[in-house]
Amino acid sequence: MIDITTASGQTDRNVRNHHHHEEDDSSTNYSSTFGGIHETADIPGIGQYEDFHTIDWQRDIARDRMRHRYIIKKKQDSVWSLIQGAHDAWSGWLCVLLVGLFTGVVAGVIDIGASWMTDLKFGICPQAFWLNKEQCCWSSEETTFDTGNCSQWRTWSEVLGQSRTGAGAYVISYLFYIMCALLFAALSASLVRMFAPYACGSGIPELISKQMYLMPIIGNILSYLFPKYGRNEAKKREILSAAAAAGVSVAFGAPIGGVLFSLEEVSYYFPLKTLWRSFFCALIAAFILRYINPFGNEHSVLFYVEYNKPWIFFELIPFIGLGIIGGVIATIFIKANLKWCRYRKYSKLGQYPVTEVLLVTVITALIAYPNPYTRMNTSELIYLLFSQCGISNADDLCDYNRNFTDANSAIEWAPAGPGVYRAIWLLILALILKLIMTIFTFGMKVPCGLFIPSLCLGAIAGRIVGIAMEQLAYNYPKNWLFSGECSTGYDCITPGLYAMVGAAAVLGGVTRMTVSLVVIMFELTGGVRYIVPLMAAAMASKWVGDALGRQGIYDAHIALNGYPFLDSKDEFAHTSLAADVMQPKRNESLAVITQDSMTVDDIEALLKETEHKGYPVVVSHESQYLVGFVLRREINLAIANARRTVDGICGQSLVIFTNSNPPQTLGPPHLKLKKILDMAPITITDQTPMETVVDMFRKLGLRQTLVTHNGRLLGVITKKDVLRHVKQLDNEDPNSVLFN
Amino acid sequence: MIDITTASGQTDRNVRNHHHHEEDDSSTNYSSTFGGIHETADIPGIGQYEDFHTIDWQRDIARDRMRHRYIIKKKQDSVWSLIQGAHDAWSGWLCVLLVGLFTGVVAGVIDIGASWMTDLKFGICPQAFWLNKEQCCWSSEETTFDTGNCSQWRTWSEVLGQSRTGAGAYVISYLFYIMCALLFAALSASLVRMFAPYACGSGIPELISKQMYLMPIIGNILSYLFPKYGRNEAKKREILSAAAAAGVSVAFGAPIGGVLFSLEEVSYYFPLKTLWRSFFCALIAAFILRYINPFGNEHSVLFYVEYNKPWIFFELIPFIGLGIIGGVIATIFIKANLKWCRYRKYSKLGQYPVTEVLLVTVITALIAYPNPYTRMNTSELIYLLFSQCGISNADDLCDYNRNFTDANSAIEWAPAGPGVYRAIWLLILALILKLIMTIFTFGMKVPCGLFIPSLCLGAIAGRIVGIAMEQLAYNYPKNWLFSGECSTGYDCITPGLYAMVGAAAVLGGVTRMTVSLVVIMFELTGGVRYIVPLMAAAMASKWVGDALGRQGIYDAHIALNGYPFLDSKDEFAHTSLAADVMQPKRNESLAVITQDSMTVDDIEALLKETEHKGYPVVVSHESQYLVGFVLRREINLAIANARRTVDGICGQSLVIFTNSNPPQTLGPPHLKLKKILDMAPITITDQTPMETVVDMFRKLGLRQTLVTHNGRLLGVITKKDVLRHVKQLDNEDPNSVLFN
Repeated sequence: MIDITTASGQTDRNVRNHHHHEEDDSSTNYSSTFGGIHETADIPGIGQYEDFHTIDWQRDIARDRMRHRYIIKKKQDSVWSLIQGAHDAWSGWLCVLLVGLFTGVVAGVIDIGASWMTDLKFGICPQAFWLNKEQCCWSSEETTFDTGNCSQWRTWSEVLGQSRTGAGAYVISYLFYIMCALLFAALSASLVRMFAPYACGSGIPELISKQMYLMPIIGNILSYLFPKYGRNEAKKREILSAAAAAGVSVAFGAPIGGVLFSLEEVSYYFPLKTLWRSFFCALIAAFILRYINPFGNEHSVLFYVEYNKPWIFFELIPFIGLGIIGGVIATIFIKANLKWCRYRKYSKLGQYPVTEVLLVTVITALIAYPNPYTRMNTSELIYLLFSQCGISNADDLCDYNRNFTDANSAIEWAPAGPGVYRAIWLLILALILKLIMTIFTFGMKVPCGLFIPSLCLGAIAGRIVGIAMEQLAYNYPKNWLFSGECSTGYDCITPGLYAMVGAAAVLGGVTRMTVSLVVIMFELTGGVRYIVPLMAAAMASKWVGDALGRQGIYDAHIALNGYPFLDSKDEFAHTSLAADVMQPKRNESLAVITQDSMTVDDIEALLKETEHKGYPVVVSHESQYLVGFVLRREINLAIANARRTVDGICGQSLVIFTNSNPPQTLGPPHLKLKKILDMAPITITDQTPMETVVDMFRKLGLRQTLVTHNGRLLGVITKKDVLRHVKQLDNEDPNSVLFN
Repeated sequence: MIDITTASGQTDRNVRNHHHHEEDDSSTNYSSTFGGIHETADIPGIGQYEDFHTIDWQRDIARDRMRHRYIIKKKQDSVWSLIQGAHDAWSGWLCVLLVGLFTGVVAGVIDIGASWMTDLKFGICPQAFWLNKEQCCWSSEETTFDTGNCSQWRTWSEVLGQSRTGAGAYVISYLFYIMCALLFAALSASLVRMFAPYACGSGIPELISKQMYLMPIIGNILSYLFPKYGRNEAKKREILSAAAAAGVSVAFGAPIGGVLFSLEEVSYYFPLKTLWRSFFCALIAAFILRYINPFGNEHSVLFYVEYNKPWIFFELIPFIGLGIIGGVIATIFIKANLKWCRYRKYSKLGQYPVTEVLLVTVITALIAYPNPYTRMNTSELIYLLFSQCGISNADDLCDYNRNFTDANSAIEWAPAGPGVYRAIWLLILALILKLIMTIFTFGMKVPCGLFIPSLCLGAIAGRIVGIAMEQLAYNYPKNWLFSGECSTGYDCITPGLYAMVGAAAVLGGVTRMTVSLVVIMFELTGGVRYIVPLMAAAMASKWVGDALGRQGIYDAHIALNGYPFLDSKDEFAHTSLAADVMQPKRNESLAVITQDSMTVDDIEALLKETEHKGYPVVVSHESQYLVGFVLRREINLAIANARRTVDGICGQSLVIFTNSNPPQTLGPPHLKLKKILDMAPITITDQTPMETVVDMFRKLGLRQTLVTHNGRLLGVITKKDVLRHVKQLDNEDPNSVLFN
């Protein structure tokens, strides 16, 4: 998905948006470019994009090959050229290495900062304010850390001279919680405003969230260091894919999951070489993060689960049930979030993004504080929900009537105490609150994350189902379902596993990932024995999600924003032919340039009359046999260049696109433009079924194709024509295909 | 890679091979077909393949869409059609479900059988001969199973009245070992002969080994139950991809690794839908195998490792070193194996496959028995090498000078005893023997596996390096490298982890997998904490392998067998244009059919004179503007059909490919063949760079493309032309592009 538009970090965003709305008002307008192979370096400006144009992969890859060959040819000339050649060959690996390094470092710094700021919501370490709670307690060398507090660490109410409990302390804590949340929101908002220019143009912000948001920005900036990537949008996408993989790799400690996520969700064009580069980039980032070790412990697996018990066959039924629940929750989330985002987009709210962020923060903090499960850090909550109730776990959730005699003994099977039921009610409340909060926060200008909240929603639902199953098995141990495995007297059902499966189900329903989801889940938890349950829930959730609402959250947001993205997941199921879709329609005439019979004035008049971004070149107006394709931008540049540098070129000069010189008459000298002619445009016949055309657009990354019949040019189909046609057939408004 | 040729289970293999050598002798011959979209059902035989033709993905996918639309249109007609429609919609999922079910069951049966047969090499359970050693000992309820023997289980020397030890016993055991090995080899050879017709045609046997070998056969057979897949080679490949994923899933208990293996190595065309189907298929197979539980225990993770200790940073250096060693071993293996296979192919040996199998078996068994590490089952050896030396491990490999006081205590750090050094020598010997054995066995008619032997080679090398590191750290604990982490007195280096990394390195070097390799490794071992070491070794091994020898074993075998496979991993790095590659060359003339001026006799003469598999249809011989493309096979069928069914068709009848009727003169009636004309052939211009052409062939799955200039037809490029051109540029023999 990050291939959508070209990025630019320099110009002001509003200006560009304005500019583009203008361009897109003319609906017969088709964007175009050349995909051929010839050196274009001598006319300045040729071969580059304007901002926000769709990318022509064919052209960009051809350009890169040209550059590559030029370097190889020059290699023999001198030692310096040899070094340049070696640098060029290695610059891809070097660039992803740098991206990996920076990603790892940035993630480490963010993790340390985030952990400190999260704890700052609750209190401070007076001796050394830069330490977080865990480090503070570590430095005091108290061993009672498991209960969560130590004497070195002061809550805000203690700092202000109040006791640790009581109404006054509660109010003070509440106020500090809200204030800190506001402070961080303001900080993030200003950070985002700072970095936005580097990300906004590329369609990334809506797609990649939390710290993953930062990584493609790193990739974008670093790619400018390497002309091979910085100046070639198609090649740059390879770096961005790698950066996305590295982002997931550090955000969740899931390097392989990151690569697969990049493959399944982010990338449009994913050659095997990109797979290896992404793999390398994710590896480096994971290694650096592991080296920095931001959590000061062996925290390389984010939600590491200690249990390792095999699951029982009948559990597959509740697991699939969780998949269905996950699909339903995900569908509710997607639909509501889309409604809200659409409202934001078309109402006045969209003009005050910072106000919105601050308002939502205050409301969220107000609602979240009273419930301990919404008050705590979401990651901590997930960790709690995934874990098994052991001897050291003091949470209400683990209030079972059991006695631990020995830390090493197996966990006894026990009925739930009143704390568990209290916890269930609070969890249900937390589920509803978190769902509503996430609906409003996802899509805000400050990226608030999608993965962690989705995992959390699912983990809550899963844990509740898990506790229900556990107590059912405890109360009816003689039932044939449980009698086989649950007769040993030990815990045969692990509620934490249900939380894990539920988390996978909701995340799967929201994003519609499958393989990458399961890989991420077991990289997150280390639960390699639970592949089958995770896979079953992911499949069920995806099916339910697909049945209830066609699109995952990413595709839905792309559609909402009107990016010209040809989704490779949808099948084109209509019977139309290329002739039905192409421009111009029957009674209009096609704007073409002839190869050797038009003057400079004729061409300039044509450019003035029409707004197309490119023009086919034909043998003559009568025969219309196709010769090639030429871009508006390049004709303009070439004519201007010729007027400046060549004597005698004037309005009456004939423009010649062929090699053979027509006899020079008495008039002014000819203007030879074969150099800018793309002699190898992709063509199709008018009888080609649109499925094949769509397939070609997707797989070859075309921006337009020329339509012929018996060799004669009939018209042009652009990517936008295809998208409009699809919308029309789906009974949607074809004019919603725009940029932003 | 399983897309190479069409499969056939009926005709005799030798006959087909002969037939194809004949066809390929004519080098100007180009294979071709049509990629259009029109109903071809009325002329019998049209739209099907002959055996061993390359697949035209465009055409097959178009055919499937037609069929799909026809069913949807008919849906409204009756309830029966509705059911048919539903069946059609679900048949893909149903088919992969069945494949998954069968795969799971077959794998379970094979696992049970293999485990019994492996133990039968050493002895028997006299009370119940159908039990393997483990089950036999379980039934006797002895608790001393860990040491490996129980009184119920009799070795062959005991059965024959000898003692358990002594020279006589050794000879008897040796003989039985060889006899059993021979017996199983003969059995496998006859099984393979039975199943071969279902697999040979499809290019599978050389690629997929051991039980994975069986799975695509299951897919192939089951797909015939569903006309949607059985009759459409492109669609069938989707099922085969899923079957390959299921095969890896059950062979190694690695469902996700299987899906990724299928993505990275096996499949040429892998849409997202296939990803999900493969995922589902792998899931079902894994589930069924888990349900059958062939090992009678919780053996769902094949080489489960118990240790969970974080690795230390400086260990990255030996890990990368292992990657390099792995790359070297893999290159030696690939080169030697290729030499041997090439010798087998062109010598008399290739004519006696069964003799070869039996001979190799005897020699292997003779050599393998004396060394305990080659005598034992390879999987057991890998398990032993991966594991940590615990209290219950009695092997020489664990002969450390340490005392276990408590089973739960951490493992003390200790110097190696004499047993360890003995074991190292035997392991080095085993490494050399196994390497030589595998060179000769991979590529035999009986599939002998590649994954497990590769893993084993790497595990041996890794374990040796691991022990060396461990003893180094023990002897120099004050060295700055070790002082940080190894000062606690406990074992800080795990030789088993080195074995794991080494195994990944060799397998990675042999197959050049990356992401799928790491996923398979951690599904195999559960070592989720060791992603970074595994990734580092895999990358190093791949780089070394790529530097020393260009191809992985699969690609090398494809090249050896001359399959027309356009590898998507290689970049096409030459500057040639379509005009340089196309047929015919400059002074030959192109065989074309005109749209309305040739008689039946003219066409039949043309077909007799030329051997092309398809002919372009043009407006007239003078202008050569392209109208469409028609297949030799279909012209023949259509003419024969018309002669039989339409009155008056004779040699003088004009053949008309247009809609408009030329004035009917006095002669015989016209033969209208617009129906078999593909009106939408893929065309390119003669100036198109060959990179773009190769890209189109790969991504669109073309079999040929037509070359035009200014709308006029110039020639044809087929997939084989492209492959020959690549070979020519690489200074290889272009005539080696053949089938088999």
